[in-house]
Amino acid sequence: MLAVHLEAGVVEVRDIPRPGRPAGFALIRLLVGGICNTDLELQRGYYGFSGTPGHEFVGEVVEADSANLIGQRVVGEINLACGDCSWCARDLGRHCPQRTVLGIVRHPGAFSEFLTLPERNLHIVPEGMPDEVAVFAEPLAAACEILDQTALAAGTEVAVLGDGKLGLLIAQVLHAHGCRVLHYGKHPEKLRISMTQGIATHAIGERPLPAATFPYVVDATGSREGLRTAVKLVEPRGTVILKSTVHGEVPVDTAPVIVNEITLIGSRCGRFEPALDLLARGTIGVQSLVSATMPLSQASAAFAKAAEPGVLKVLLTAE
Amino acid sequence: MLAVHLEAGVVEVRDIPRPGRPAGFALIRLLVGGICNTDLELQRGYYGFSGTPGHEFVGEVVEADSANLIGQRVVGEINLACGDCSWCARDLGRHCPQRTVLGIVRHPGAFSEFLTLPERNLHIVPEGMPDEVAVFAEPLAAACEILDQTALAAGTEVAVLGDGKLGLLIAQVLHAHGCRVLHYGKHPEKLRISMTQGIATHAIGERPLPAATFPYVVDATGSREGLRTAVKLVEPRGTVILKSTVHGEVPVDTAPVIVNEITLIGSRCGRFEPALDLLARGTIGVQSLVSATMPLSQASAAFAKAAEPGVLKVLLTAE
Repeated sequence: MLAVHLEAGVVEVRDIPRPGRPAGFALIRLLVGGICNTDLELQRGYYGFSGTPGHEFVGEVVEADSANLIGQRVVGEINLACGDCSWCARDLGRHCPQRTVLGIVRHPGAFSEFLTLPERNLHIVPEGMPDEVAVFAEPLAAACEILDQTALAAGTEVAVLGDGKLGLLIAQVLHAHGCRVLHYGKHPEKLRISMTQGIATHAIGERPLPAATFPYVVDATGSREGLRTAVKLVEPRGTVILKSTVHGEVPVDTAPVIVNEITLIGSRCGRFEPALDLLARGTIGVQSLVSATMPLSQASAAFAKAAEPGVLKVLLTAE
Repeated sequence: MLAVHLEAGVVEVRDIPRPGRPAGFALIRLLVGGICNTDLELQRGYYGFSGTPGHEFVGEVVEADSANLIGQRVVGEINLACGDCSWCARDLGRHCPQRTVLGIVRHPGAFSEFLTLPERNLHIVPEGMPDEVAVFAEPLAAACEILDQTALAAGTEVAVLGDGKLGLLIAQVLHAHGCRVLHYGKHPEKLRISMTQGIATHAIGERPLPAATFPYVVDATGSREGLRTAVKLVEPRGTVILKSTVHGEVPVDTAPVIVNEITLIGSRCGRFEPALDLLARGTIGVQSLVSATMPLSQASAAFAKAAEPGVLKVLLTAE
């Protein structure tokens, strides 16, 4: 089968054997995969990653222990948890210390004609939902995670910093939740996606940012400046949600965090249920986020495309 | 009257006029003041401070609008709030954007024979409580603030990092609250104070620190390393409380904060009521924290003493 191989910054497509299916796992044929910033970071060598990347996918189950799964279109949670520890018992397998992670940590990823995942990780895609929509379940779940971690009430003012893929999803999720979102970004053409959804936007650089204004600020900038800006924007006793993975150490002035008693919350993967629900109801406009769709065999070009400035989501399709 | 004057790193005692008493304010005669790390930071020039420092005090009211205050021994909240804004309405004058701060921001401090504070900032010291105990109300309130900001339940494991004055108070407050405290520090002779209160201690350097172990970690190290260590010690989805003011930017690796979905909470001043209550019940052993007591006229030597390694609280007494 064709599979993307990433090693030392090089993306190539190889012909490798189809993976075996352990008991409790499903063998899944890839339909569509999505390239995430994390994939680009793996390419930049941040985790010493070598192997098949890819953790955003929709596929069709071809083999499984559970007969009712066979032939179903599925998306899948990316953390493969042990199922036995205290974290798993609390339904937080996403933090299981023994976990592997699809396409990131010691489990071959989804950019491959076939992949495997535990059956318990799978969610059946609602009938009629296009593959190009369902493939957003994983990043949308990460956006929805904010609502699981905070008591964000409808009507609350929230600043979302960053107009990349994740920032655009977060702004829409919080807007759909009833928050009064102000979406800050540097790219008017990307902010326009939020604007068409009725979200107030602010192009950074137009005028100075307000200080100590928002009870909640989400940093989805992916930049070293993001946290600093967020700490400036948030009001005393307010909350900053950190959604940006920035590599290496970020210089933070902790004095305003302490003086203003600010709360910073790290936020990563989320549950798929609320994400699939939002997609099924058509609440979140994801198709405007797709910049290109390319075949798996052109993964190298697709990765290069995804890294271009101004490009949002690049999808990979199986031939 | 005698008053400490701090400017450009130099502490001297001057003879200056007694302050006038605005309406709504009390004129207070100093009994005992306490030198805090913040005072030493003011001396190091971190805030461009110039004037009379001092915000930990116990004094006697000599003039006030309210006759029942006159002659009372009092301690006082250090933030002078406007009383009219939305923060003040929420009983969070400690975050009032118009506030001045006793001995720190545009209000002359307590290291002076007489000081003024709004009457509403004052708390009467319970009869029989020694001045040398009451003077700890302010730093103890800052320690108690942690319980106001979190839902820390009795029985919860908490690591307290740092065996300075504030770390020692925090360890005792959380121990008294019923938490299972493990107090980490670098100074066996300081940790002994916690040990005598029945608190488990761990001298850093004895053996490697555990990773991802504690649901709560308090950083009271006052060092740039503290936050990094706290993030290592805290378990996924755990909470780190930041009690250390460190000047300049601190390099923080935000990746583990995000991957492990850690919450960081900045924490500063607290309400005096729970602190006075703990002192009145004799729950917190503060007298073992006093390294020296010196007269106000020797403030310069007292500041030097307070900055010596191994020294905890230095008190200043009016002659």
